[in-house]
Amino acid sequence: MPNPENLRLLLISNSTMHGGTYLGHCTAAIREFLGQGRKRVLFVPYALADHDAYTAKAAAAFAALGHEVVGAHRFADAGAAVAGAEAVFVGGGNTFRLLRALYHTGLLPALSRAVRSGMPYLGSSAGTNVATPSIRTTNDMPIVMPPAFEAFGFVPFQINPHYLDADPRSTHMGETREERLRQFHEEHDTPVLGLREGCLLRVAAGRAELLGTTAARLFQRGRAPEEFTPPCDLTFLLQRTR
Amino acid sequence: MPNPENLRLLLISNSTMHGGTYLGHCTAAIREFLGQGRKRVLFVPYALADHDAYTAKAAAAFAALGHEVVGAHRFADAGAAVAGAEAVFVGGGNTFRLLRALYHTGLLPALSRAVRSGMPYLGSSAGTNVATPSIRTTNDMPIVMPPAFEAFGFVPFQINPHYLDADPRSTHMGETREERLRQFHEEHDTPVLGLREGCLLRVAAGRAELLGTTAARLFQRGRAPEEFTPPCDLTFLLQRTR
Repeated sequence: MPNPENLRLLLISNSTMHGGTYLGHCTAAIREFLGQGRKRVLFVPYALADHDAYTAKAAAAFAALGHEVVGAHRFADAGAAVAGAEAVFVGGGNTFRLLRALYHTGLLPALSRAVRSGMPYLGSSAGTNVATPSIRTTNDMPIVMPPAFEAFGFVPFQINPHYLDADPRSTHMGETREERLRQFHEEHDTPVLGLREGCLLRVAAGRAELLGTTAARLFQRGRAPEEFTPPCDLTFLLQRTR
Repeated sequence: MPNPENLRLLLISNSTMHGGTYLGHCTAAIREFLGQGRKRVLFVPYALADHDAYTAKAAAAFAALGHEVVGAHRFADAGAAVAGAEAVFVGGGNTFRLLRALYHTGLLPALSRAVRSGMPYLGSSAGTNVATPSIRTTNDMPIVMPPAFEAFGFVPFQINPHYLDADPRSTHMGETREERLRQFHEEHDTPVLGLREGCLLRVAAGRAELLGTTAARLFQRGRAPEEFTPPCDLTFLLQRTR
């Protein structure tokens, strides 16, 4: 039975730090999250165009941690893809393209059921966006249109990955990230957690914890933004109506 | 009868330059575009949340040029809003919110007919995005979902307003604008004109001309990007199948 206590999520802001290697900055967190023993990890590569190359990249990173990766695009059937896996990793790229593929392949309901029943879910960037109620706080360009903006909704709040502070020296007049999130709150009252590059959110046993090396910024409608420095507990964010 | 030769468009990258006033940098272009005599300009304020305040801001800028502004939100009927106007100005803000309102109010077909029959169309930022075939190259956050991403399609190419060059000193790992447009071209082969802040595109008498003080960057699938410095002729961009 789906039970919020069953959820095990590792939601990463960004897969690569400047000057770092793919997933290098969250190796320890992934290792702890997946636990002992070799796991078969379903990789969802649809946010990028080249599924084989992207799966090979993920496979190399997970092989170094002792885990096996299989690409979701190798299966004709979403149910079979999920049934054979012990964990899932949804990679970053373009969130619109990713969500459209999750709908079209049937992975959206199949993974939703599995993760709500306890399958560990790892997401990075676009893969973190789709773990939230919707993709309405993605930074990505809407290059394709998914059937809806609603996504997995494993957590009851939005996340903005790659959260970026305004550069006070900038002369660019496009909206700052904070202005964009304020526009979101003109339309919705769902809280938004801005995950700066370098931080990540772990959800397990009904608790949410901020990990990593950079602070997160929480935006709520009608309230001043709040800063949270890891490690710290963010369980209160789970305690809204799902 | 709709005729491409009838189209009169002034498509502005950004309404305000750093340190400048609202529409200050394109006053001369707007003056020339609207011509002699007091015009009644329909202002479409739906990209921002406060329609009255936004209309008042536009009205002040156009009053200084001798023109009258009426807000589209003051009309119950899109046809009546358009029928009483001699030109239309679609203001910037959030492109998703704007396009959703254009669909819901009926302004999309009403303005499409009027502009294809010769009504001058001014757009800034989001108002420039919706003049193209779709909003797939907007920079904005998808805070609400329009019924479709298709827009007016007055020109047969996409525009990316506020086009921004990558900062070589940046350590941020989110996609650069150029990477985002490359992802667009993984999915579509429509050319994209990146309008840097400070430039604008004028279409009239079957010709397209780049104006302003900054260069534009043209992205085409499978080709190296090209730079265009104003003033210069870009009529070749109109000569694709509409």
